[in-house]
Amino acid sequence: MYDIIIIGGGPAGVSAGIYAASRGKKTLLIEKKRIGGIIGNVSTVTHYTAIMQPETGESFATRMWNQIKNCGVEIINEEVVSTSLKGDVKSVTTDKNTYSAKKVIIAAGSTPRKLDIEGEKPLDGKYIYLNAAKDGERFKGKNIYVVGGADGAIKEALYLSQFAKTLTIIHFEEKLGCIPEFGEKVKSSSNIKVVLNSRLTKVSGTDCLETLEITSEIDGTKQVISDKGAGIFVYAGTVPNTSAFGELELKDGFIPVNAKCETTIEGVYAAGDICFKQVRQVATAVADGAVAAINASI
Amino acid sequence: MYDIIIIGGGPAGVSAGIYAASRGKKTLLIEKKRIGGIIGNVSTVTHYTAIMQPETGESFATRMWNQIKNCGVEIINEEVVSTSLKGDVKSVTTDKNTYSAKKVIIAAGSTPRKLDIEGEKPLDGKYIYLNAAKDGERFKGKNIYVVGGADGAIKEALYLSQFAKTLTIIHFEEKLGCIPEFGEKVKSSSNIKVVLNSRLTKVSGTDCLETLEITSEIDGTKQVISDKGAGIFVYAGTVPNTSAFGELELKDGFIPVNAKCETTIEGVYAAGDICFKQVRQVATAVADGAVAAINASI
Repeated sequence: MYDIIIIGGGPAGVSAGIYAASRGKKTLLIEKKRIGGIIGNVSTVTHYTAIMQPETGESFATRMWNQIKNCGVEIINEEVVSTSLKGDVKSVTTDKNTYSAKKVIIAAGSTPRKLDIEGEKPLDGKYIYLNAAKDGERFKGKNIYVVGGADGAIKEALYLSQFAKTLTIIHFEEKLGCIPEFGEKVKSSSNIKVVLNSRLTKVSGTDCLETLEITSEIDGTKQVISDKGAGIFVYAGTVPNTSAFGELELKDGFIPVNAKCETTIEGVYAAGDICFKQVRQVATAVADGAVAAINASI
Repeated sequence: MYDIIIIGGGPAGVSAGIYAASRGKKTLLIEKKRIGGIIGNVSTVTHYTAIMQPETGESFATRMWNQIKNCGVEIINEEVVSTSLKGDVKSVTTDKNTYSAKKVIIAAGSTPRKLDIEGEKPLDGKYIYLNAAKDGERFKGKNIYVVGGADGAIKEALYLSQFAKTLTIIHFEEKLGCIPEFGEKVKSSSNIKVVLNSRLTKVSGTDCLETLEITSEIDGTKQVISDKGAGIFVYAGTVPNTSAFGELELKDGFIPVNAKCETTIEGVYAAGDICFKQVRQVATAVADGAVAAINASI
């Protein structure tokens, strides 16, 4: 029986763990992959106050791991599949065990969305749905395509442009949706091309990418590009990981919380990207984790 | 004419500056002392996700400075004395100039409270109201007194105990108000003594501390301790720096904000310790700064 179970080991979950332990609570943190969350996979961490410079997702996640591993939180690598959250004792079932606690902090974050297009399966992980920090260099001198127009997409496009012959950003809206800092860098880059009002609708190839089909959002025109061996990096939004929390009512797919990070179920808190909120940044996830754990420890 | 003026260069102000600049806003940050705020003066920064280990206030403030100085924010060292915040153009008057902006983010933080006791004046800055990180070592082998029982006081007491012959914590309540992590460390320390239900009510000495008077909260008994050359470190709470913002209504002395960090005056935001809120940590100040700047940039 734990005082607090934290589900998820990204910035919100790690922050919650640090605070819960500092309050003397017997705390279990369950993370299915590794400490760091989505931010641990990015090429560059920006805008979070007092980061190192340069700061990669890898270096940031390593510091998070070093901080949480010795602070008194028990950490296990399991995947939460279901929960029973009502009542005084909450239970959390993973792919291996069931754990109980008085309080639960849900910091399960979100998962990058796939495009679900024809031809993606045989190329998945090899030529599409790649990780810029890990896979970028493999496409040195080749063409690279980035799907997406928000901050995350453009940050990775800027990083990948150092490797690409030509880097093409494919975005479905009429302009990029990123912050001016990134937009200016795209403009001043010599090898970045922006294709707007367009979607990637099909890929082909078995052992290697052969062609991409791009469809115009305006008139439905389809253009097929032959680009053998190019790489496609997709940043088409994320889906909140709420499937294990069926007892909670969602708002637009996210968990609503109040200023104390309390959900509608007593003793259950949510923190970070899984919450219904306006700003989703490392900074706000870390603050959520602190607020949730401080309240769960009272 | 600036897009955004940020008042204060602690974690909230720095975070706001980084975000405002990334949104392409012409931003002025006004800080009266140096970038870092109160946290820049502490001996140890704890619990903020992805800090360095060890992390001093100095190292943390240095990283904040390195991050803000090159991100496109104009930074000036002046003291804000008054503001005119209503209407489309806001003006901010310092000890040297008046500046105008469309939006203002108030991140002016708070100032450590003094005890206002008899005898403090001649010893101020030399034997009382000291900075643990800077002055601690000077009291090596001497007795050290820490006034206060909250997290900040106990963290500094633990730090100072490495130098002190005996470290005495004087706290007016019946138990320490710190988190269990710190409470346990106090218990296991061999040279920390805790004096509860007591206040420091008088000091004497001219060039050097001679005596301390401690008064019991229970029966008013006064005890005078002769301890020539000892040092007194005071952590008796803080006072929010709101004097330049007379147009804003306060709540318990702090500025109320909504989830977007908006105050009741349009175009005026507040972030960090100056806000009326439950949790005051570096983490929440940094998140406030991000949220305020993102909204001020829309």
